[in-house]
Amino acid sequence: MNLLLISNSTTSGQPYLQWPIEHIRKFIGGCAETAAFIPYAAVTFSYDDYEARVQARFNELDITVQSVHRSPDPARAIREAELVIVGGGNTFALLQKMQEQGLVEAVRDATLKGIPYIGWSAGSNIACPTIRTTNDMPIVEPASFEAAGLVPFQINPHYLDAHPDGHAGETREQRIEEFLAANPTVTVAGLREGCLLRIGDDRRELIGDRPMRIFRHGTTPQEVNPGDNLDTLFK
Amino acid sequence: MNLLLISNSTTSGQPYLQWPIEHIRKFIGGCAETAAFIPYAAVTFSYDDYEARVQARFNELDITVQSVHRSPDPARAIREAELVIVGGGNTFALLQKMQEQGLVEAVRDATLKGIPYIGWSAGSNIACPTIRTTNDMPIVEPASFEAAGLVPFQINPHYLDAHPDGHAGETREQRIEEFLAANPTVTVAGLREGCLLRIGDDRRELIGDRPMRIFRHGTTPQEVNPGDNLDTLFK
Repeated sequence: MNLLLISNSTTSGQPYLQWPIEHIRKFIGGCAETAAFIPYAAVTFSYDDYEARVQARFNELDITVQSVHRSPDPARAIREAELVIVGGGNTFALLQKMQEQGLVEAVRDATLKGIPYIGWSAGSNIACPTIRTTNDMPIVEPASFEAAGLVPFQINPHYLDAHPDGHAGETREQRIEEFLAANPTVTVAGLREGCLLRIGDDRRELIGDRPMRIFRHGTTPQEVNPGDNLDTLFK
Repeated sequence: MNLLLISNSTTSGQPYLQWPIEHIRKFIGGCAETAAFIPYAAVTFSYDDYEARVQARFNELDITVQSVHRSPDPARAIREAELVIVGGGNTFALLQKMQEQGLVEAVRDATLKGIPYIGWSAGSNIACPTIRTTNDMPIVEPASFEAAGLVPFQINPHYLDAHPDGHAGETREQRIEEFLAANPTVTVAGLREGCLLRIGDDRRELIGDRPMRIFRHGTTPQEVNPGDNLDTLFK
């Protein structure tokens, strides 16, 4: 396994994918010239537009982005890729289309063979056992909530501590506590914006300038800092 | 049909169910002494506790709240109720359990017979055709997203305009635009906190001190004020 799981594509006020691009460069290490891109989280803009937007940033890495929506055999494109990229957007739309095209299994097979995987936002949710910790609205109904399970824990991307003043809806922490009440054996990693997880066979690293918040049923949430050992997440 | 669909149970800093209780009193109009209560949106506290909390407020109306989780035949309890109440919490947990016990159909049958229905938050989501406009985390997987369909449009409860500063996650309006892109024939009513819809066979009313925001695919969202005609929502 060789995974780069990114909380968010864009930091407020900055261009698309700018903040993580140097982390992506180091992760790839010059070992790919092409990438198979899964654009299916796009809902309010076209897959063509999504591919072009990602290509524009990956030009900096001299990588050609090939969106699977133009492939005659998307699952094969994933299995034979040098690098797999799954972009953010709506997690339900992403998973539904991936299931329809057999891409959940294809991504699992590809990463098991060692093909590097980069995901952000919904692309990080898809790397988890299920999409049950997505923040997205369930605008379409996937065949099931089961995802690729590349890591044994759940990520909550865009994790945030703030809550709009005077609003009575649940905080993010309350939502995750609800998840734990219903799924008491599962660990949740609240990955704040500007942070990412780099996970290899002998490397498990939180990168970013903020800690990650780890939630387990029946215990007080724990803050984990960049550089801390992450092995307990994999038990 | 005789529906009271409430955005939220609790206004910041006030006791549980206090703000809507006078609206609930007028809606019931002294015509019920008991209510069948569906508590299944509760996840981090027990159904017994939920029943007790709602009973405490409904004491003011001299109504005995009977939670269906204690009934030997919950579907029958709903069909034979004087009044049906569906409380808020997690919409996915609520729908899953309602499906398991045949309560989606029971609620539909009951309201078609004219039994009054009161729902807040997740209880308002359940009154819609599907739960695709819930704000909740998909912590459990219902058999489908189909809900009771008591109204022909989707409600987004706890609708809010604000967005935490410096956070790159989607705004609520962006989420609803994603919904519309995937479901272009469906209308969404963004029901702000402190607001409710009262819907009878010859009465369709927004009540509260704020407008409701109506979203339709391909058009600019519209603000509808309390007192405005709501008939277009039912076309």
